[in-house]
Amino acid sequence: MTAKRKKIPVAVLGATGAVGQTFMRLLANHPWFELAELAASERSAGKKYGEASRWLEGEFPEANLLDQRVIACDPGLVRSAVVFSALDSSVAGDVEVAFAKAGKLVLSNAKNHRMDPDVPLVIPEVNGDHLALLANQRKKRNWKGGIITNANCSATVAAMALAPLHEAFELKQVFLMTMQAVSGAGYPGVPSLDIIGNVVPYIAGEEPKLERELGKLLGTLSDDEIVPASFAVSSHTNRVPVEHGHTICMTLSFKKKPTPEAAMKALREWTGCNATLDLPSRPKNPLLVSDLPDRPQPKRDVNCGGGMTVTVGRVRKDPILDIRLVAMGHNTIRGAAGGSVMNAEMLVASGVIEPA
Amino acid sequence: MTAKRKKIPVAVLGATGAVGQTFMRLLANHPWFELAELAASERSAGKKYGEASRWLEGEFPEANLLDQRVIACDPGLVRSAVVFSALDSSVAGDVEVAFAKAGKLVLSNAKNHRMDPDVPLVIPEVNGDHLALLANQRKKRNWKGGIITNANCSATVAAMALAPLHEAFELKQVFLMTMQAVSGAGYPGVPSLDIIGNVVPYIAGEEPKLERELGKLLGTLSDDEIVPASFAVSSHTNRVPVEHGHTICMTLSFKKKPTPEAAMKALREWTGCNATLDLPSRPKNPLLVSDLPDRPQPKRDVNCGGGMTVTVGRVRKDPILDIRLVAMGHNTIRGAAGGSVMNAEMLVASGVIEPA
Amino acid sequence: MTAKRKKIPVAVLGATGAVGQTFMRLLANHPWFELAELAASERSAGKKYGEASRWLEGEFPEANLLDQRVIACDPGLVRSAVVFSALDSSVAGDVEVAFAKAGKLVLSNAKNHRMDPDVPLVIPEVNGDHLALLANQRKKRNWKGGIITNANCSATVAAMALAPLHEAFELKQVFLMTMQAVSGAGYPGVPSLDIIGNVVPYIAGEEPKLERELGKLLGTLSDDEIVPASFAVSSHTNRVPVEHGHTICMTLSFKKKPTPEAAMKALREWTGCNATLDLPSRPKNPLLVSDLPDRPQPKRDVNCGGGMTVTVGRVRKDPILDIRLVAMGHNTIRGAAGGSVMNAEMLVASGVIEPA
Amino acid sequence: MTAKRKKIPVAVLGATGAVGQTFMRLLANHPWFELAELAASERSAGKKYGEASRWLEGEFPEANLLDQRVIACDPGLVRSAVVFSALDSSVAGDVEVAFAKAGKLVLSNAKNHRMDPDVPLVIPEVNGDHLALLANQRKKRNWKGGIITNANCSATVAAMALAPLHEAFELKQVFLMTMQAVSGAGYPGVPSLDIIGNVVPYIAGEEPKLERELGKLLGTLSDDEIVPASFAVSSHTNRVPVEHGHTICMTLSFKKKPTPEAAMKALREWTGCNATLDLPSRPKNPLLVSDLPDRPQPKRDVNCGGGMTVTVGRVRKDPILDIRLVAMGHNTIRGAAGGSVMNAEMLVASGVIEPA
Repeated sequence: MTAKRKKIPVAVLGATGAVGQTFMRLLANHPWFELAELAASERSAGKKYGEASRWLEGEFPEANLLDQRVIACDPGLVRSAVVFSALDSSVAGDVEVAFAKAGKLVLSNAKNHRMDPDVPLVIPEVNGDHLALLANQRKKRNWKGGIITNANCSATVAAMALAPLHEAFELKQVFLMTMQAVSGAGYPGVPSLDIIGNVVPYIAGEEPKLERELGKLLGTLSDDEIVPASFAVSSHTNRVPVEHGHTICMTLSFKKKPTPEAAMKALREWTGCNATLDLPSRPKNPLLVSDLPDRPQPKRDVNCGGGMTVTVGRVRKDPILDIRLVAMGHNTIRGAAGGSVMNAEMLVASGVIEPA
Repeated sequence: MTAKRKKIPVAVLGATGAVGQTFMRLLANHPWFELAELAASERSAGKKYGEASRWLEGEFPEANLLDQRVIACDPGLVRSAVVFSALDSSVAGDVEVAFAKAGKLVLSNAKNHRMDPDVPLVIPEVNGDHLALLANQRKKRNWKGGIITNANCSATVAAMALAPLHEAFELKQVFLMTMQAVSGAGYPGVPSLDIIGNVVPYIAGEEPKLERELGKLLGTLSDDEIVPASFAVSSHTNRVPVEHGHTICMTLSFKKKPTPEAAMKALREWTGCNATLDLPSRPKNPLLVSDLPDRPQPKRDVNCGGGMTVTVGRVRKDPILDIRLVAMGHNTIRGAAGGSVMNAEMLVASGVIEPA
Repeated sequence: MTAKRKKIPVAVLGATGAVGQTFMRLLANHPWFELAELAASERSAGKKYGEASRWLEGEFPEANLLDQRVIACDPGLVRSAVVFSALDSSVAGDVEVAFAKAGKLVLSNAKNHRMDPDVPLVIPEVNGDHLALLANQRKKRNWKGGIITNANCSATVAAMALAPLHEAFELKQVFLMTMQAVSGAGYPGVPSLDIIGNVVPYIAGEEPKLERELGKLLGTLSDDEIVPASFAVSSHTNRVPVEHGHTICMTLSFKKKPTPEAAMKALREWTGCNATLDLPSRPKNPLLVSDLPDRPQPKRDVNCGGGMTVTVGRVRKDPILDIRLVAMGHNTIRGAAGGSVMNAEMLVASGVIEPA
Repeated sequence: MTAKRKKIPVAVLGATGAVGQTFMRLLANHPWFELAELAASERSAGKKYGEASRWLEGEFPEANLLDQRVIACDPGLVRSAVVFSALDSSVAGDVEVAFAKAGKLVLSNAKNHRMDPDVPLVIPEVNGDHLALLANQRKKRNWKGGIITNANCSATVAAMALAPLHEAFELKQVFLMTMQAVSGAGYPGVPSLDIIGNVVPYIAGEEPKLERELGKLLGTLSDDEIVPASFAVSSHTNRVPVEHGHTICMTLSFKKKPTPEAAMKALREWTGCNATLDLPSRPKNPLLVSDLPDRPQPKRDVNCGGGMTVTVGRVRKDPILDIRLVAMGHNTIRGAAGGSVMNAEMLVASGVIEPA
């Protein structure tokens, strides 16, 4: 695809929220997409974006969008054929189906359809081939649009670190403990009285999501379905006073026992699905393996690769199982909006999304 | 022991540091002990305490101590027969031996002698009977004093939650993940640029300490030695921007598989070693089990029982092993100075420390 | 009043919110009052308190209250003659009037009636004599109850530090800059994404409140009204990532120019209105003047005097005006619930609130 | 100056510290300068940079520098004619003089020589013309090198917001209250136990620096000296738990009383010294004036203009003086290393630093 090519117009559903804003930042000046429509709840519809939204982070990316009118999340009003959904799960289920029925391709961050057997749950470098499920979904549901999901933010960070190891050594058991940033809860999200100088060892609904999505992400495409990976997963999920970046401690056992050196080699050499190599959002290194004793750290490593690189460190022998390590990635970029954008890029590269 | 009894004079070694200051707060107005001597490094010796030290927390406990002269950590200068050691591990090893040789009873927070076979490593409610090792130590080392240690702060919090479960169901495997407060690193300790809005997934030397001390703490006294408990331990240790309170996620397997209900019952009914019931520092509940979905939390639960209670929550089934739970306790009180003071109280109650 | 005396039953309006909870902590085991009724919004009414509320801080103070039914904020349902109002200002205006009309004495934290000419705005040590306005209020409004208010949290902290100086040297100009804790915004209050690692130089409506309330607090009672103090006030108000404790930098000019030494002497010798000396909530020192170069600090000094003492430090010469200093006090205790409770105590001591 | 031009080799003194590292980030890929030499204390000299230093922030900018040998801060060893000094003030005084004597041009962040009458104290957009003092310095001190300083970080932020107002309306009185980021104290700097959840209302030596440097920065060049601006300054300086970005509340009086609208207009239209317009580090807007009610905020605005833009907000009428406003800027970029680099650029543009 050449630089001269006309950009593909896209819409963001839920554009006023925290994830919606991250979509806007990532789509501003995107080489392939043009952010044409901003949709949000009825309460915001009709207002100028600048009035309907409270911008949370950094400079506003495209001044002209401040005056653009927000439209309602109605497939009859949205003209773009490609829509990114930053909708809250309380409404995403039905709205996304309505858009898919209306022929739109929905790239969704919401949890609602992730585990539907015919809905791809995709991290491009890890399981980009799962996008092939879309054909099956269209046939089965008899619609021309479709729903493609990206995973829970913690599941995304974990899956990227686990993919090369699972590929090389076959995972048996995965013990995970997360320390998750407050931006994972959206805005207003976590009250400051709950988290300043504190740790909350519980995130509602997070552990089951993390445990089940990993199996699908690292599963294999077989005919029309995903056969989940067969390893077992156990997790603790915690909220910590960090702005962006989920840090995950992992303790792992494998069928083919790797040494720490072999594990590091597998992590270092992994470049992910080849089809992703030329995608605009693809970082040079999807994984970065640190030799420093005290990394990864969210404040210091979270923006690596524009927020699309997952940093892994402390790869070491485990006294009970085989390997321990720590992984960290940007929860609202790699683990949310950036993941969706890259999924869309992959659909462009494979011809599913047609050029403008 | 009656209220009228004369108090036993004690000294604090390393009185100017963070743990030393916690000792001073806990010994102020102690019903059995009187803080008679403040010892610190040569640099501080000879100065008034108020000039040698920078008080870190709350109001200064006993105004008259501000003018007291700091003495050097020299057994020839310290008259008290009972000394609490808040010394840094870089000097504690030799200094504590010198005091024990000189006939002093040293209650130590330092790591140096914890794993010596003849040195008791004690949490009174958990393994108060291990204090009997002291007789052996005196005989073997031919000294009249002695060294009694308390455990690493994380090991202490973990051991208290594990003790009732190990007793009832016999632990096989322990996976731990800690989120540790900055006060665990002393003062000045962790630079703010390293930890504000951040998580550091590494604490130098902490994981081996935690893994080996748990076995000794939950081991059994047999003749003249401690037979370590036979379960396996694997840990991740992390620093988080919390002032006080170490939070520990644990995933556990047992020989006798408990249901979560049975595990909670064992935790709730545990009252710890009977001999501790009348000790001044003993909290009503050494363990508190929370039913709330999102507890324990350091900011909200750390001062429970005057900082001597460990709070346990989220006791639930594990999808791989048997039980998952979260424990949290005060690292500088229960996990350091308060633990030492309670060890000394137990030695008074058992007659090893003689009344004044 | 003797210890044996029967306690006076009181109600808390808005008991489920952050300030309501602080009232509950301060009224638990209060020597004069008994927390008899918990009132809140229609949404909570009828539920057990433990179900209607999310307890924010420390241990729950009186276990039996967890099962008590919350009642609506309706003067027909509340039997206590004394009610503490922790209501939000969006509803406090009308509800408090309804209670006063029904003969209740309302001790209010809300801003709504603070500047009403016949409503006392009181900090007992500073202007306890202003409570005499109540008689006028009753006559003018023809009701048997009444409304007594305490000041905005920042105004309270500032007024306590200014009172002795104004008394001794007559204030002319007051420049204030606050750094306010997040608990001042209630719960859920400030989103963590807004304040972790950040400062917000704006608090809606705070500056005008602070500027106008100071004049009334330090004003003089003259016949039936308060003649406001004549000094000028200018303020900047900021939110900082601190849990409790508002810190205020002040730069001051006076009619009678004091030296810093004279100012410190006035602050140190001030004991406040004599009538407060025997009130249960009255701290030994309403003001504490620190000599340390870097105090007051919210984390270290906020709980001084049970949260009722205001700490003052850095009293020094100003290069433009006369004196600079820093004051800090607990915003939800001295600056909110504790202030109301002490106002009620003063009304008991003066016979306005009759014994049970 | 054309892009093809050979780069000018420069050295950083104190390259291992926090400000030294910021210099390295800013000089990496600089269009005019090439970071040729890294100098630090004797302790580091001889080591590879990667071993001598602990990298604090983000990705390391130029991989090849990790292996470069650190040299001592000795003018006999440093070959570059232009050196940036990030030295601590405990050593900067003498070392900088030694370099200047040896013919080097020293761009210094240290406080030591800022107030020397013949040493320029410069923010290019504000008082770039003061660089002319250098000729006088060379003559007077009889050296071929020279010392050029940039101001204290808070003074820099304040001076940029004040410059257009002083120019237009002539300042009379300046009341400042700062909330300063921890990075201003270097590394390790502020202990986390001192600042997490806290505010410290004192920074050693900061208030006098801030008060005296403002007069020189906004002073006028007259023959061979700077006539300080005649307005009076009074300040409170505070440390807050923010990583980067000093926020300053200001209350101002002027000889020509501006309305808030006139003040905003002056701020908005100010573009600073013309000679800076083409300098590489010069941001498009040296000042950005926000209309949002709650800005500037360090976390959200600090990286504006690559950390070189100062954001001003809340310009409003003052009830006592004339105008109140809040300014915020990046303390280690605009307020330290970035300021020095821009001073050097200005010396290149004016021909004082000769091309390579």
